[in-house]
Amino acid sequence: MARKRNGGRPLKIIPLGGLGQIGMNITAFEYGNSIVVVDCGLAFPEDDMLGIDMVIPDITYLLDNADKVEAFVITHGHEDHIGSLPYVLKQLNVPIYGTRLTLALIEGKLKEHGIIDMVDRRVVKAGDVISLGSFKVEFIRTNHSIADACALAITSPVGTIVHTGDFKVDYTPVYGDPIDLQRMGELGRKGVLALMCDSTNAERPGFTNSEKTVGKTIDALFTEHEDSRIIVSTFASNVDRVQQIIDAAYRHGRKVVVEGRSMVNVIQAATELGYINVHENTLIDIEDLKNYPDRKTVIITTGSQGETMAALNRIATSNHKLLQIKPGDTVIFSSNPIPGNEKAVAKLINELSMKGADVVFQDAHVSGHACQEEIKLIYTLVKPRFAIPVHGEYKHLKAQAGIARELGIPKDNIFILTTGQVLSINKQGARITDEVQTGAVFVDGLGVGDVGNVVIRDRQSLAEDGFIMAVMTLEKGTNRVLAGPDIVTRGFIYVKESDEIMDEAREVLNKALDKIHDKNITDWGKMKSIMRDALSSYVWKKMKRRPMILTVIQEVEY
Amino acid sequence: MARKRNGGRPLKIIPLGGLGQIGMNITAFEYGNSIVVVDCGLAFPEDDMLGIDMVIPDITYLLDNADKVEAFVITHGHEDHIGSLPYVLKQLNVPIYGTRLTLALIEGKLKEHGIIDMVDRRVVKAGDVISLGSFKVEFIRTNHSIADACALAITSPVGTIVHTGDFKVDYTPVYGDPIDLQRMGELGRKGVLALMCDSTNAERPGFTNSEKTVGKTIDALFTEHEDSRIIVSTFASNVDRVQQIIDAAYRHGRKVVVEGRSMVNVIQAATELGYINVHENTLIDIEDLKNYPDRKTVIITTGSQGETMAALNRIATSNHKLLQIKPGDTVIFSSNPIPGNEKAVAKLINELSMKGADVVFQDAHVSGHACQEEIKLIYTLVKPRFAIPVHGEYKHLKAQAGIARELGIPKDNIFILTTGQVLSINKQGARITDEVQTGAVFVDGLGVGDVGNVVIRDRQSLAEDGFIMAVMTLEKGTNRVLAGPDIVTRGFIYVKESDEIMDEAREVLNKALDKIHDKNITDWGKMKSIMRDALSSYVWKKMKRRPMILTVIQEVEY
Repeated sequence: MARKRNGGRPLKIIPLGGLGQIGMNITAFEYGNSIVVVDCGLAFPEDDMLGIDMVIPDITYLLDNADKVEAFVITHGHEDHIGSLPYVLKQLNVPIYGTRLTLALIEGKLKEHGIIDMVDRRVVKAGDVISLGSFKVEFIRTNHSIADACALAITSPVGTIVHTGDFKVDYTPVYGDPIDLQRMGELGRKGVLALMCDSTNAERPGFTNSEKTVGKTIDALFTEHEDSRIIVSTFASNVDRVQQIIDAAYRHGRKVVVEGRSMVNVIQAATELGYINVHENTLIDIEDLKNYPDRKTVIITTGSQGETMAALNRIATSNHKLLQIKPGDTVIFSSNPIPGNEKAVAKLINELSMKGADVVFQDAHVSGHACQEEIKLIYTLVKPRFAIPVHGEYKHLKAQAGIARELGIPKDNIFILTTGQVLSINKQGARITDEVQTGAVFVDGLGVGDVGNVVIRDRQSLAEDGFIMAVMTLEKGTNRVLAGPDIVTRGFIYVKESDEIMDEAREVLNKALDKIHDKNITDWGKMKSIMRDALSSYVWKKMKRRPMILTVIQEVEY
Repeated sequence: MARKRNGGRPLKIIPLGGLGQIGMNITAFEYGNSIVVVDCGLAFPEDDMLGIDMVIPDITYLLDNADKVEAFVITHGHEDHIGSLPYVLKQLNVPIYGTRLTLALIEGKLKEHGIIDMVDRRVVKAGDVISLGSFKVEFIRTNHSIADACALAITSPVGTIVHTGDFKVDYTPVYGDPIDLQRMGELGRKGVLALMCDSTNAERPGFTNSEKTVGKTIDALFTEHEDSRIIVSTFASNVDRVQQIIDAAYRHGRKVVVEGRSMVNVIQAATELGYINVHENTLIDIEDLKNYPDRKTVIITTGSQGETMAALNRIATSNHKLLQIKPGDTVIFSSNPIPGNEKAVAKLINELSMKGADVVFQDAHVSGHACQEEIKLIYTLVKPRFAIPVHGEYKHLKAQAGIARELGIPKDNIFILTTGQVLSINKQGARITDEVQTGAVFVDGLGVGDVGNVVIRDRQSLAEDGFIMAVMTLEKGTNRVLAGPDIVTRGFIYVKESDEIMDEAREVLNKALDKIHDKNITDWGKMKSIMRDALSSYVWKKMKRRPMILTVIQEVEY
């Protein structure tokens, strides 16, 4: 790594989400007085973020530099790339650029939040170049598990950065054209400063199969199961997948029901925009299912990840109003479990099997991300001076760093950035020069940021052992006990069964009160802490548990 | 399925744990006045069983028939087959039978519970036949991921049941001999009524590799990483695995440190009993590590499932007193993630990678369970009339049922039992005749069964949105408010930031109180419910959250 000396004003690359908060993709590119932000995603909560609905990035750095921020440029319409936009735009209203389907999905969100009219939305198409302050940003067609995905060539006065977004190389995509490899090669020939390349599948050797191969599998499965009703579950946003399922249904003379709110929404948007092409008289309403024999119907649903509230789980657990599993149904999972969902998916499969369904889980899915050989292809075309692996857990980024080294990029030219690190690049070299404030903001219901680490820790403690609360009323001045101590407890033990424990606990409190009186302690803080400690140590000795213990004192002038 | 007519007194097979509580293996075999119980395992809590340490079976049926229960016969020493014994034996003190290592592991538990002296423990060896009331039980050598595992041939007046326990077919085991296939054949030739066969890997084609293949892989990895310190993580109870790691270390001139409480315990027991054979001067104390160059040391640890408190995780997160990861360390996972642990394992790998370790995750593990071809082999040797797939999730049991049908067992002779179902078999046939009480008893700290579904639901609610409690003191007789309403909240929002909400909430409560006074309501139950509803609907409207809401009223004679 060359020390920065006279290389001139640097380009700064600052990941503001990402690593540590997988999924929260948002990266600032800063040169002089211009900042361009790539993507603005949300993260789903980790297991220990109890009660949290989603996680969005702390954008303090952008707000502090609000006058510099030119725009958000969005690579594609997945939640981890667009999900935080409604929250962020409320604080920082700048134009957003994206392709047609990407913007349509964003617009759905902006409508939900009631801010669609205040946002400047600019539709681009692959090949477009937009000027944003000191930057030129070119959208380059790629392939991914959602249509209309783009890579970006971000050109600043010190050079060009190629950011792949999430991508794969699909020579035979279902919709549109293959990734624009020629343009990648052209850019590489002219000279690319740095490549920021998708690492999700960097541990997997070989090539990711074409989306079209799934169509063939589904067709074969429809033939194999021609006598039964078929339910296919996949990701709502995978429009090409849904297209292929509908095509297969059409070929096999089956009617199609689409079930699950997000699936219905996406298909509607995709149909309106022409990304999906439904044969006439193929889609039917769920109420009309009963008018067709089972072997002539297909149900496409959400819920392939075992999500409790999604359509497939409700169907499997007999919690769906209009649909339930019948013995002989065939359920095809056109998906793989996302890491962390394996157990929920297994549970769902068990439910479906118990109800008599034949569950098919093999070969009806391909990944939307590039494997090792595709990553090598992109590096070879783009031929960057610096490699900055993006998208994936640390182990994936490290795997891509290994690939970059194999391809001849020197170790010192490879940067695995952590959130908030500022990578400064100029013609002289690249180095980490600073660190800015970043973080995770929790969204819980309508609240944004009102649940922080203290509240989460309380929830964890309450989840583990519940709470015990001692309540009493004291006489003002004398501290004489007028009422209580009463004990209220939830999530600790089933109290009716354990009245002995409650009796003993009250006794412990009364002894603590005697001590307080004997020592003439009148400070409420001290009183509470003596009572809390007494109760806590009693419960630990008796049961080896640590419920949250609270003391409430009210005062009455007698 | 033949209807039971004159087939005489039946043999009853009753799973008392198992399906739905995966891992809780316990099955009663009843004939006339004799009950023999096979295994007595625990289950680890599901994700939604908040704060629960383990789950044990409800043995009401055994207690109701206590005078019939002859003994527990144990197939092998894994937690899901022995873990509930200390709890169950306290209520039902009958002899336990098992092989040497199995009993040694049980005895460790009985000592911890202080009941070792009261339990009648009887060591058997493979080939032994014991008489238990109307039953004869023969122990048959098998192979598994723990030494000294046995299948059982349980002979009653109506015929013989073969129960495989957990098993695989290993022609070249590390310790002892291959599974006694000859005896299986002999029994089959004489006639076996039913086979209860391990289904865990029934979805996997082919054969499970021999444990010895892992030894070769580990040896190769030691050669490949000869310049770095090596950490190998595996299951504590896999004594053969540990043996092979120690052997490889010895061959490569490395000293071995064993780290992690359960690992140390098991190795100690196994060494004392001769199941493991450690070369002199190979094991060293952890404190002596510093006296050897890194390339001459191996650390064998627990924690391969990403368990937070296990040694490897503490080492990875710099929470271990004596060990931490150094850049260049090689960490070998000699294990696969158990379903549900994938995310924790990935997190651990990321931690290790970030600290600079080279993490190796391939080919250093084989399963302890039979794949499809091994299952077919056992069916072909035993040739049972009835098939009762055991051990595994529903989808695994169903997969084995499919194999049984392929092998010519009629559909009506295959039974997938759910917990509590009574399968009655006699010479005439088999059918489900009854259902007995079973269930899951939660163990939390020292408490057994004092946390039930109500408490768990409260914990889930508290985990989701915390609680709000309104406290006030009323004058006896008049119900005049003397103090409060005060509001106490935890796990809901960070209160300092949200005082407006607290103010509004108090106002809501005061309005509710006005209403109560206006309507002259004096019943505390009604008062509380009016206040609760008011607060609940305010919070839902304001924040779309549903915290637990409680009201406490104290009364003072004024």
